[in-house]
Amino acid sequence: MKVAFIQTSPEFGRIEENVESVLRNIRSPGLRGVDLIVLPELFSTGYQFKSKRECLALAERVPEGYASGKLIEAALRNKFHIVFGIAEREGGKTYNSAALAGPGGFIGVYRKAHLFCNEKKIFSPGNTPFKVYSAGKAKVGMMVCFDWFFPEAARALAVKGADIICHPSNLVLPYCPEAMVTRCIENRVFAITANRVGVENRRRGERLKFIGTSEIISPKGEIMRRASRNRVQVGVVSINPKDARDKRITPLNHIFRDRRKDMY
Amino acid sequence: MKVAFIQTSPEFGRIEENVESVLRNIRSPGLRGVDLIVLPELFSTGYQFKSKRECLALAERVPEGYASGKLIEAALRNKFHIVFGIAEREGGKTYNSAALAGPGGFIGVYRKAHLFCNEKKIFSPGNTPFKVYSAGKAKVGMMVCFDWFFPEAARALAVKGADIICHPSNLVLPYCPEAMVTRCIENRVFAITANRVGVENRRRGERLKFIGTSEIISPKGEIMRRASRNRVQVGVVSINPKDARDKRITPLNHIFRDRRKDMY
Repeated sequence: MKVAFIQTSPEFGRIEENVESVLRNIRSPGLRGVDLIVLPELFSTGYQFKSKRECLALAERVPEGYASGKLIEAALRNKFHIVFGIAEREGGKTYNSAALAGPGGFIGVYRKAHLFCNEKKIFSPGNTPFKVYSAGKAKVGMMVCFDWFFPEAARALAVKGADIICHPSNLVLPYCPEAMVTRCIENRVFAITANRVGVENRRRGERLKFIGTSEIISPKGEIMRRASRNRVQVGVVSINPKDARDKRITPLNHIFRDRRKDMY
Repeated sequence: MKVAFIQTSPEFGRIEENVESVLRNIRSPGLRGVDLIVLPELFSTGYQFKSKRECLALAERVPEGYASGKLIEAALRNKFHIVFGIAEREGGKTYNSAALAGPGGFIGVYRKAHLFCNEKKIFSPGNTPFKVYSAGKAKVGMMVCFDWFFPEAARALAVKGADIICHPSNLVLPYCPEAMVTRCIENRVFAITANRVGVENRRRGERLKFIGTSEIISPKGEIMRRASRNRVQVGVVSINPKDARDKRITPLNHIFRDRRKDMY
């Protein structure tokens, strides 16, 4: 199957333009025949909300909202699966969510469990479990950006059977791209980290430069594709999700059965 | 405090020579005034036992055995702490162990929990908990080589309060040196990985080339010192173990309190 990331450069608050920009990418020849696409965190709104109130105004219900609807429509039409990071509103709460849609429509949502820094002032902590979904021939799990920092997140998804960890991100610190190599090795899974580029400077003293470097990593830790640090870019790779299912890394080592749960 | 690794090149089975070689390093000017030294896995015997019987013949009781005795003596005399990897015998069983000694003598032993490949034919799986000890101004924990692969091991030590993870190793695969950067970042601890160099070729079809690359990593993931891939070498770094105690990586993120234990 063919999997892809789209590395974007959204403009804060310009939802229609940001969605249209992604739809243009989806229609481009480079993404023809792709089976699974991962977009960055908060792809439609941008990242740096000034307040929870501002976030509530820009967030949407999932799957009923505008941006979700456009991507679900694209998934239906093009018969692919897509994971996108989205500011989700439910009642008076907002979540930093990742949603999955496919050729049959909306599938599920994951709400970011580990909120980074000022996100805690904007979003409620996730209240959905780490969960694995079928996406064509692959089993996929979702986590969002800073979730990478906690090995328990990727571990939970892998133990539940994820072949591919779909990882919408808005990374500013430099550590994650290398750490995802470790996450893939230790869990023997694929990972698709879709990050954004550009700068946001809407809060005094908090200039955020996003690091790009979106990537697709194999279960052996090979960097199959890695994007630049500063350009809008698409990455596509052919993978066999079954490569993530054999957890024996030597004839005598099965990385899950070898865990010493009695000791942790 | 000054911490160090000694990257060795033991000759299989030549215990006295291997111990003497380490003692020479300890007496060298480069290690004067050091507070904590970490040696590789199985430093006194070498790695590639042909059988459990051969291992039983070369393994020793800890702390009563010859190699343990020599290092405990060195720790007493020089007033440092030392962690060394050792083939440990207890009754009819052998363990791939790490031992800690200090200015007050023998302190404790950890028996490798996650055995790699053919080690399962030689050693019994570890039956000691992940535990943290005082070593001068630092709290230290021990894990051995392939334990790195399981994020739960370093996590258990860090949660129990380790400032420094002492990590005797005999690495042959290339992944660990980079993965230890992730282990340090995700747990905000120091790590000292002491590896060996050289080749062992005692079992048909199993030529082992050890990758050196011993290293000392900071809680922020900085590689403070990294050794070559093929030379006997000593690495010394000055650190402040307190740098590992503040688990807040942003004003709003404490990496242990932020864990969503309800979700893993």
